[in-house]
Amino acid sequence: MASNRSTVHGSDLDTVAGNGLLHRRMFLTAGTAAAAAVAGAALPDPAVAAGFPVEPWMKLPGAGFAGYGQPSKFESKVARTFASLPGTTGTGAARTPHHLLDGMITPNGVHFERSHSGIPDIDPETHRLLIHGLVKRPLVFTLESLGRYPRESRVAFLECGGNGQLLYQKEPAPAGVQAIHGLVSCAEWTGVKLAVLLQEAGVDPKAKWILAEGADAAGMSRSIPVAETMDEALIALYQNGERIRPSNGYPMRLLLPGYEGNMNVKWLRRIKLTEGPTMTKDETSKYTITLPDGKSLQFVLPQEGKSVITQPSPGLSMKGPGLYEISGLAWSGYGRVTKVEVSADGGKSWTGAALQPPVLSKALTRFRIPWRWNGGPALLQSRATDETGYVQPTREKMIAARGNRTIYHSNAITTWAVSDEGEVKHVYA
Amino acid sequence: MASNRSTVHGSDLDTVAGNGLLHRRMFLTAGTAAAAAVAGAALPDPAVAAGFPVEPWMKLPGAGFAGYGQPSKFESKVARTFASLPGTTGTGAARTPHHLLDGMITPNGVHFERSHSGIPDIDPETHRLLIHGLVKRPLVFTLESLGRYPRESRVAFLECGGNGQLLYQKEPAPAGVQAIHGLVSCAEWTGVKLAVLLQEAGVDPKAKWILAEGADAAGMSRSIPVAETMDEALIALYQNGERIRPSNGYPMRLLLPGYEGNMNVKWLRRIKLTEGPTMTKDETSKYTITLPDGKSLQFVLPQEGKSVITQPSPGLSMKGPGLYEISGLAWSGYGRVTKVEVSADGGKSWTGAALQPPVLSKALTRFRIPWRWNGGPALLQSRATDETGYVQPTREKMIAARGNRTIYHSNAITTWAVSDEGEVKHVYA
Repeated sequence: MASNRSTVHGSDLDTVAGNGLLHRRMFLTAGTAAAAAVAGAALPDPAVAAGFPVEPWMKLPGAGFAGYGQPSKFESKVARTFASLPGTTGTGAARTPHHLLDGMITPNGVHFERSHSGIPDIDPETHRLLIHGLVKRPLVFTLESLGRYPRESRVAFLECGGNGQLLYQKEPAPAGVQAIHGLVSCAEWTGVKLAVLLQEAGVDPKAKWILAEGADAAGMSRSIPVAETMDEALIALYQNGERIRPSNGYPMRLLLPGYEGNMNVKWLRRIKLTEGPTMTKDETSKYTITLPDGKSLQFVLPQEGKSVITQPSPGLSMKGPGLYEISGLAWSGYGRVTKVEVSADGGKSWTGAALQPPVLSKALTRFRIPWRWNGGPALLQSRATDETGYVQPTREKMIAARGNRTIYHSNAITTWAVSDEGEVKHVYA
Repeated sequence: MASNRSTVHGSDLDTVAGNGLLHRRMFLTAGTAAAAAVAGAALPDPAVAAGFPVEPWMKLPGAGFAGYGQPSKFESKVARTFASLPGTTGTGAARTPHHLLDGMITPNGVHFERSHSGIPDIDPETHRLLIHGLVKRPLVFTLESLGRYPRESRVAFLECGGNGQLLYQKEPAPAGVQAIHGLVSCAEWTGVKLAVLLQEAGVDPKAKWILAEGADAAGMSRSIPVAETMDEALIALYQNGERIRPSNGYPMRLLLPGYEGNMNVKWLRRIKLTEGPTMTKDETSKYTITLPDGKSLQFVLPQEGKSVITQPSPGLSMKGPGLYEISGLAWSGYGRVTKVEVSADGGKSWTGAALQPPVLSKALTRFRIPWRWNGGPALLQSRATDETGYVQPTREKMIAARGNRTIYHSNAITTWAVSDEGEVKHVYA
């Protein structure tokens, strides 16, 4: 590795925090000197002099068109990992490989999934959505009748309430971003505002809650305060432009931007207006935060502010000292991310990363910062702040507040340790 | 149809332009009266009274997880249509089914394709990008070495220079939005700024143009002024979060937001800095605008401001009078769309549609407006205006300016005629 150090012209670069973090605008402002510092990443002139061959795939006509395309066969590792409870077909979760993605949109093929009794094979022609209970006019919608209503689009993250639960464990899990934080994804969702349909049904003033029920074999059901659904809740029909995938609720799901993934009921078939919460199995036996004193918090709606570094991260080893981009994702169920700070020395010093526009409320936000790795050990961390002033806590602070009897709403700072071999591991720091 | 008219309470709704166009904020502001007017779209109470059966897919556990997901089997019609030149494997184009999509993002599976000799089967391990010509330091990049550079993400439309060419025909093509305007799509692209790489190579001041060459069997090549690439051009590596699809340039393509699709060279293998344009076959025999006097315009870079109504459109028939949402897409290679006006009477009267946020420069913008169809004939049109003040022309104006010896840069207003049977057809008006 030492032989590569000659490609790093450290003196041209201004560090802004410990252990090599560089100013987020370095590549935009520092001019030729900074750019030259990356030169080691490109092959040197001799490779050019050796000729630039016409590749075999240029010598024959290529493949024809397809109605619906797929990724390159060379990208088969870009896939969800998943596990089901023994004896079930699909009670479990499938996780997004964020270490292999970039941008803020999660492609539909690898959007995370959490199912409580597998993916139902719903015929959209016979699926119905019922709105009933404390309403003046119970209504039943087909997919076609719902298609007559005005629609809205919304880029929003979805995060399982159990995402990040490994951080509650006493010892750091030997795992990466997919295993630890793969139950969050982001898509452009399009659908009909729930408020429009509730207005048409005529909500009885006594109705303060809704029950939302899915058409899966688990009849997965959650209660949500009516008031929390009026501004942003959608009956989502489209995901990144096309009809929602079966694993994400085809033909329709509830979308509550920023709220616990589980409340965004998939395969939505029924909304009942009620006076109080229904206390379904899915909000009593699960999705509650049990505190150290044994009391449980129920209906913890928003997913709190959070971030994680996706590159570098475990599974992506560093290839020699020099310039790298540290990149990751930040989000908050409270609104817009306003700041992401990054540390390369385990939290001793921090500096602000660049936030990739557009920065949207309750959407994943990509952050980036250049880093000059000196080839020595490093502890990489990121810390998100949102527009309400909420700051992502350290793991110590999170556990001091909540204990570790729960598995939900884990939003602590994650630490990746870089060894002097360039290996990246999950640690507590 | 007459029996359905009782569901339309016209007196509660304020029309803002001829033939039933309603204010774009109607659903947000008009309250219960307006909402009730859509009630005909939902099934009446008797359907509720008849019971709400547990569907068969709720009686058995559903399917398990998959590493890489696919759309529902019921959505097989959501596919690109395509045609190749006889005797070729893939010289032709595949078109996006915009009438079946919603939102601004085009899912990767149906992003449009235009190939000049099929899709090369490129091994990312051996693919190289060469930057040479009038530079101080010729550089060769592997996919891995390029991965060390800082990246940017950008939501951008891509439009084939030949999109909309059917509008140059004397008679209106009996076709819909996919056949006429399906060669435009929009994605979040992520990659390395070309300017960073050019800075590292050290551009000779004499170099005013680049040649960009693809690694397909056609060696598809275009010339672009260097100055036009400095602000926004990317070497794009990711499309909607995942690696670019083979049909869209895997493992890397040039992205020039707003510019003629063909210049966004796919399977990019070589950038050569030159004094003038190279005058490749792809910019002399094709992609020139031949004017009525026989002179040809070359290097017409930006795709001009344009819009099209996607719902309703041919293939989507209207199901009886009442409220509908008119929805469509607008874009401009000059920047941000600032206004989309819609007409239901063939251009006699217009009113502004709602633009779905976020409205991004050089990205597709979704527009929406409520419409009360009275069951009679209608002529639906949309007209985009961008931040430079450019207004999408009528077909007459476009042909007066350009004649119809060309097939490129067709951005005229498209007209859909709705018959009193609810059938939607392409017409000239």
